[in-house]
Amino acid sequence: MSVPTLVIHGGCGVIPRAQMSAAREAGFRASLRASLEAGWAVLAGGGPAMAAVEAAIAVMEDDPNFNAGHGSAFNADGAHELDASIMDGATLRAGSVASTRRIRNPIRVVAELARRGADPLMLAGEGADRWAADNGFAMVENGYFATDWRRAALEEIRARARAGTLAAAPESEKHGTVGAAALDAAGHLAAGTSTGGYTNKMVGRVGDSPIIGAGTWADDRTCAISATGKGEFFIRKVLAHEIHARMLWGGQSLAEASRAMIHDELSGWAAGAGLVALDRAGNTVMPYDTEGMYRGKASPAGIEVAVYAA
Amino acid sequence: MSVPTLVIHGGCGVIPRAQMSAAREAGFRASLRASLEAGWAVLAGGGPAMAAVEAAIAVMEDDPNFNAGHGSAFNADGAHELDASIMDGATLRAGSVASTRRIRNPIRVVAELARRGADPLMLAGEGADRWAADNGFAMVENGYFATDWRRAALEEIRARARAGTLAAAPESEKHGTVGAAALDAAGHLAAGTSTGGYTNKMVGRVGDSPIIGAGTWADDRTCAISATGKGEFFIRKVLAHEIHARMLWGGQSLAEASRAMIHDELSGWAAGAGLVALDRAGNTVMPYDTEGMYRGKASPAGIEVAVYAA
Repeated sequence: MSVPTLVIHGGCGVIPRAQMSAAREAGFRASLRASLEAGWAVLAGGGPAMAAVEAAIAVMEDDPNFNAGHGSAFNADGAHELDASIMDGATLRAGSVASTRRIRNPIRVVAELARRGADPLMLAGEGADRWAADNGFAMVENGYFATDWRRAALEEIRARARAGTLAAAPESEKHGTVGAAALDAAGHLAAGTSTGGYTNKMVGRVGDSPIIGAGTWADDRTCAISATGKGEFFIRKVLAHEIHARMLWGGQSLAEASRAMIHDELSGWAAGAGLVALDRAGNTVMPYDTEGMYRGKASPAGIEVAVYAA
Repeated sequence: MSVPTLVIHGGCGVIPRAQMSAAREAGFRASLRASLEAGWAVLAGGGPAMAAVEAAIAVMEDDPNFNAGHGSAFNADGAHELDASIMDGATLRAGSVASTRRIRNPIRVVAELARRGADPLMLAGEGADRWAADNGFAMVENGYFATDWRRAALEEIRARARAGTLAAAPESEKHGTVGAAALDAAGHLAAGTSTGGYTNKMVGRVGDSPIIGAGTWADDRTCAISATGKGEFFIRKVLAHEIHARMLWGGQSLAEASRAMIHDELSGWAAGAGLVALDRAGNTVMPYDTEGMYRGKASPAGIEVAVYAA
């Protein structure tokens, strides 16, 4: 028997502290808490890590505070393309969708793909939307994902692009993702990730969130991980699977391997990176190299949430 | 200085020996040789591994004998969706496209994405086609990829699906991929993979070929790998990166790690799997667990090609 534990993130692209009002930060903290409570209800009831991850992420997808589902960033066409993945550490089954436009909750679709555990594992574009619709998932018009906040961000990024000040844009407009990793009472691990990408991303651009091994990984032998940050770098490092490999083959702890990847391996690339993870013993880590990361943890000891460094 | 070496595959889904005429096998062998000659011309001239991989794969994409580019399998809609990726072991730069429908040579587009080494690394669907067109790559109508052979295969698979005999379909209709891995005189490694998927695949289904770490991996510290086979399993094992990790962190040789993955780790899943790979010292492996694998090697010792077990 393991001690059930859940960790979540709402992305390492936080609103800069100087621009964050107390009321708004309280809103983010309440959103994180709601996600943790949904996932924790599953784990506390003896439910599986996969279901806890799905429940926690679905809440964040529905919450306009986070860049996933409703509240997703606008791409360069002023539309929304969503990516997500999930992985079951007990079976290594996984599901993934990339560039979907009409799936209300991508995490629910990838969870079903993982449950089936067959072919397809990954679906892209219109094919993903078609499969979800054919299998009875809630579908929406693309405009459902829009929020005034993200629309304003698109205008700001476009203005920065014209002015040549894109590099100085705050992290909150460069990336955002939600994710969760869980350990259930039966000792099984799971992880999932969901995103709207980033503001003004090229149409069709896919980051690490739907890539098994890059943004998401779970294996009962080692750890469960969901990453957030500049996806291209995570893909090039196969970041989540690399942490697993350092543990399995290199004898590193989760903390050692995670620190090495976020603070050493990626630091030279100035990527903006973070992750939440836990190992089979329930040890948790939430490293990031940005100003903050929306994050939280639920365990029998209670629920904790944070945005900036303590 | 390293001894330049190139290995290629045209997929582990070979036509069963009993159905392969001598003339047809000679055709496949000539096709493999043409690919090796194109890649070898780059390496022999002192050119980079990335260019050799691109050249070798482009020849196979243009060759109707292989399931990539012209000659790609038909999906369930009777159309073609192509996936490809490439990775530079010197820089870990990579490029990837998934579910493209109009790019004549996907390997050339992913090579350009890798050269730029920025964002986007991966493009899916219509966005990939748009980027390629905007950047001057040769575009075609989807019908360009069609061949009578693959159209007949679609009809046969559909008949098998109706008759419930899909599982007994030959490997040649279940998957097919092309790939290459190279070591250049400067000691740099590169690998790439390109595919039309498999006959009657679900629209939007993405396999391991465009996934960095699953179907393609290159890192100068260890090895360069291109995989072929049932992509869902490769994604779940992050197969190519796992071989790298066993070498880097576990001290295994390329031969040990590759054998473990193809013959032990995947054997229980009856996946149909193969790969070509080489390490930084120029040691090459070409394991597969099917009846054969279109494959070949070019080095200063000459060019060798093979289809079935020797």
